[in-house]
Amino acid sequence: MSTIFTKIVKGEIPSYKVAESDRFYAFLDINPISKGHTLVIPKSEIDYIFDMESKELSDMVAFAQNVAKGIKAAIPCKRVGVAVLGLEVPHAHIHLIPINSESDMDFRKPKLKLDGEEMNRIASSITAAIE
Amino acid sequence: MSTIFTKIVKGEIPSYKVAESDRFYAFLDINPISKGHTLVIPKSEIDYIFDMESKELSDMVAFAQNVAKGIKAAIPCKRVGVAVLGLEVPHAHIHLIPINSESDMDFRKPKLKLDGEEMNRIASSITAAIE
Repeated sequence: MSTIFTKIVKGEIPSYKVAESDRFYAFLDINPISKGHTLVIPKSEIDYIFDMESKELSDMVAFAQNVAKGIKAAIPCKRVGVAVLGLEVPHAHIHLIPINSESDMDFRKPKLKLDGEEMNRIASSITAAIE
Repeated sequence: MSTIFTKIVKGEIPSYKVAESDRFYAFLDINPISKGHTLVIPKSEIDYIFDMESKELSDMVAFAQNVAKGIKAAIPCKRVGVAVLGLEVPHAHIHLIPINSESDMDFRKPKLKLDGEEMNRIASSITAAIE
């Protein structure tokens, strides 16, 4: 059975797309812990990120780096933090999270509630800022 | 002035070394949030990880991937989680953290107190497990 992320890549489940290449896909986390919280995934299904072929992982990080630069340009923040936990969805994903302090990257915080219009605006602003 | 991590790389400050290459260095976090909590850094000083040259970052992640495989082989855990915050020390570093649940990667948790003997034992077991 496809993961929820594979369904997103295939367009079977809608997403706020931020960037896409032939092998990777970036979209807004639907339960963001900060504005601009983005997920980067490989299009091919693999559960654990460190089981990825080394070159594929390196390429995904290069893709994520470009996305992170776009996030930093579009969203006021000190840094774009990175987290990989991978215990909820069995499809490797990198969280890119705009942060201003260490405590901003706390997954136990209440998630932001943003309406679809704002999510679209955020996604578009990041996309526009990616070189 | 050198960062504390540069001093560690140069051996001016001791560390529990896990792995080293010509460009990267891995050592145990002195304030671990779980046993096996490791930091991976570039030997050259750069503050913000996404300012690294793309190839250099990709190579560091490939190095970190090997270290993470060693951690997973040496330390009982479901996954090795990844975090990059980078607001405390101005020298890019990747946290590799053995986790069994999402809440295991919580930087606000009280840090473990492990004596030097145990830290040495953990570092050696990870080093031995890295291929």
